[in-house]
Amino acid sequence: MIKIIEANKESEKIAKILSRSQMDSTEVLETVNQILEEVKTDGDKAVLKFTQLYDENKLENLKVTQEEIEAAKQAIDKDLEKALKNAIKNITTFHKKQVKEGFMINESPDVMLGQMVMPIEKVGLYIPGGTASYPSTVMMNAIPANLAGVKEIVITTPADKNGKIKDSVLVTADLLGVDQIYKIGGAQAVGALCYGSETIPKVDKIVGPGNIYVAMAKHKVSGLVGIDMIAGPSEVLIIADEKANPTFIAADLLAQAEHDKRAASIVVTDSHSQAKAIQKEVEIQLQMLERNEIAREALSEYGAIILCETKEQCFEIANDFAPEHLEILTENPFEDYKKIKNAGAIFLGEYSPEPLGDYYAGPNHTLPTSKTARFSSALGVDDFYKKTSLVYYSKEALRQASEDILLIANNEGLTGHANSIKVRMEES
Amino acid sequence: MIKIIEANKESEKIAKILSRSQMDSTEVLETVNQILEEVKTDGDKAVLKFTQLYDENKLENLKVTQEEIEAAKQAIDKDLEKALKNAIKNITTFHKKQVKEGFMINESPDVMLGQMVMPIEKVGLYIPGGTASYPSTVMMNAIPANLAGVKEIVITTPADKNGKIKDSVLVTADLLGVDQIYKIGGAQAVGALCYGSETIPKVDKIVGPGNIYVAMAKHKVSGLVGIDMIAGPSEVLIIADEKANPTFIAADLLAQAEHDKRAASIVVTDSHSQAKAIQKEVEIQLQMLERNEIAREALSEYGAIILCETKEQCFEIANDFAPEHLEILTENPFEDYKKIKNAGAIFLGEYSPEPLGDYYAGPNHTLPTSKTARFSSALGVDDFYKKTSLVYYSKEALRQASEDILLIANNEGLTGHANSIKVRMEES
Repeated sequence: MIKIIEANKESEKIAKILSRSQMDSTEVLETVNQILEEVKTDGDKAVLKFTQLYDENKLENLKVTQEEIEAAKQAIDKDLEKALKNAIKNITTFHKKQVKEGFMINESPDVMLGQMVMPIEKVGLYIPGGTASYPSTVMMNAIPANLAGVKEIVITTPADKNGKIKDSVLVTADLLGVDQIYKIGGAQAVGALCYGSETIPKVDKIVGPGNIYVAMAKHKVSGLVGIDMIAGPSEVLIIADEKANPTFIAADLLAQAEHDKRAASIVVTDSHSQAKAIQKEVEIQLQMLERNEIAREALSEYGAIILCETKEQCFEIANDFAPEHLEILTENPFEDYKKIKNAGAIFLGEYSPEPLGDYYAGPNHTLPTSKTARFSSALGVDDFYKKTSLVYYSKEALRQASEDILLIANNEGLTGHANSIKVRMEES
Repeated sequence: MIKIIEANKESEKIAKILSRSQMDSTEVLETVNQILEEVKTDGDKAVLKFTQLYDENKLENLKVTQEEIEAAKQAIDKDLEKALKNAIKNITTFHKKQVKEGFMINESPDVMLGQMVMPIEKVGLYIPGGTASYPSTVMMNAIPANLAGVKEIVITTPADKNGKIKDSVLVTADLLGVDQIYKIGGAQAVGALCYGSETIPKVDKIVGPGNIYVAMAKHKVSGLVGIDMIAGPSEVLIIADEKANPTFIAADLLAQAEHDKRAASIVVTDSHSQAKAIQKEVEIQLQMLERNEIAREALSEYGAIILCETKEQCFEIANDFAPEHLEILTENPFEDYKKIKNAGAIFLGEYSPEPLGDYYAGPNHTLPTSKTARFSSALGVDDFYKKTSLVYYSKEALRQASEDILLIANNEGLTGHANSIKVRMEES
């Protein structure tokens, strides 16, 4: 049963949900360190060893062959393939708006300043395996990487017991022009992408979701390679007024809760009758859900219907929560969204449920969790760029600036810095 | 003596410089964890305790008073103040080009997608104390934060033995409208900014350089708050042809080397006579340098003149090194810079030495080190934004998309996701 919490009287219960445990397991960390160390030293040999151990398969080939890709293209349901193509189109349209160029400031022939925007050269994309092997993950990562101009995208994803990768994953990768796909997962895949092995190319940045081993491995190698965010358990917060449809809201809470036992499904409302109606609907729909055990546990631990005194308080709590996904089911969502300061993505109105964004509408589904929307953002084209500054001064321009630079350098006590200007001015 | 290395014969020596030690000290980590834990629990009491212990001062007030700021404005050298103002103007002009806005895609009344760009609300700016207390650090961090629209900027910086902050730091902060300045430093300042205390406000992101305690504390709290990069020791790589001026090059190598015993000063050249000339010049200029002990150690450990067979090889090595600062002192720097794929900032030609960029020209001096320019970039206005996606579909638009979404959701095995679409379509 999802609980109803009164915002003004039970703030400690809200605080508890807000402070869901961060990943912190010494045991996992030790395993991950061991795997990374072995992969660094032994390359493919270690990768194969851990793949056999954890994925329990015997692979004939680490790299997916062209034949396997062709077979997947034959086997895939044609309607599903069309749906994937439509999703790719929408996601591409949205992310194209994020493509950017450098700039030059060249106000006189004596001074030129600029910023170059260049793609990261090689990117590794981690796609989880098993039931969580999602074609949408391929789309949401490979599309912005392609748009940024990344030349080499490498996918790693664990195969099933028969050494197979899901057709929809292979077909999506193929549609997006990614042909380097390796049947490995876990910390060993992260290690291989970071250090390189005989078979797996070393990349500059690793992106994509994964279980706690993958997350800890990414955290460990970050700095040696770039990584995207370390995602915590998924979250939705729904702001609902009295008139919102409780059936829709209950369905959306459950869509979130089925992800993970630690997923958070929250409603904030100023209507007591709405709170009651949602609570009832959740129970009804929960019976019909395939993954209802996971969802039930998530709802009882991290689910809540928070009852506020005023509408303003609903928005305050939403901003404190800084949710990954925020749905606004109120009379005027187009006015109300302007009150939001912290959220990964905002879904406006009754017909914009979160799954629309997960797969299809266009914005990225890789979003900041665990209150990090206060300072970070959805994955996007920007995450696949690096920027380089350009500085040119003529001799005359440097002469004009030299007094100022010397004053600052000397104030900072760095006489070598001052000297680098001086030798240029003393030159006859 | 800076050594000359032959690129083709001594690649292991180049590899050694490239793999300079990352920070990794268990002892420091334990101290940092202890400090953070106490600050989290005891707030101001712990902050004061560690400040007294490490900064060895007794402060009357943690927060810099308006009187202290006024006194600094009176005391500062007027020419220095003018130089700081000119630098602020240049840095502002450059960073203004990075200001960005959100977008909306609204091709039909049924679908609206967008990306909001909003400032991070509260930012903490760490300014090192003592000899490394730099007004340029205030400028390079506060200017992009201001341009992004950050409402609250808080500076922490350790005071000297007399409880004073350097005039130039106070005046620069004042010029940039930052009036919350706290006389604390070290891991205790990072903890206070992350957790908040009775006096110090809790922020959303912490930026700015610091010693190893500060770096480790930032690393530890990252995730709870945002952080900028963890900077490694500073680096310059200079590509020099036969005609470049060895006096200038030697001065620039020393300007880098005086920073830190672990700073790397590298030349890459295809001219043996140039290599010899630079080596000689370094020895001459080293004698005259105030901080010559630091510089000598840095040069002997991490300095090198790398002699290449060809000009192309010079650029290959530069790209492998992915240096923080890259100077191109060749005949055609405006052609040659196009060969660079990885660098934090590029300085073109003989009259654009790195210190010009450190203080004055406009681009940011907070740059990626230790090969991270492969995947990361200079600090900029972007680092003070967060972006939020917007999704709106009408009922009709969702109906048209629903088949596709259901196919993908079911392929991914998430029936709760599918259900969230279904309940909306079943509604009469």
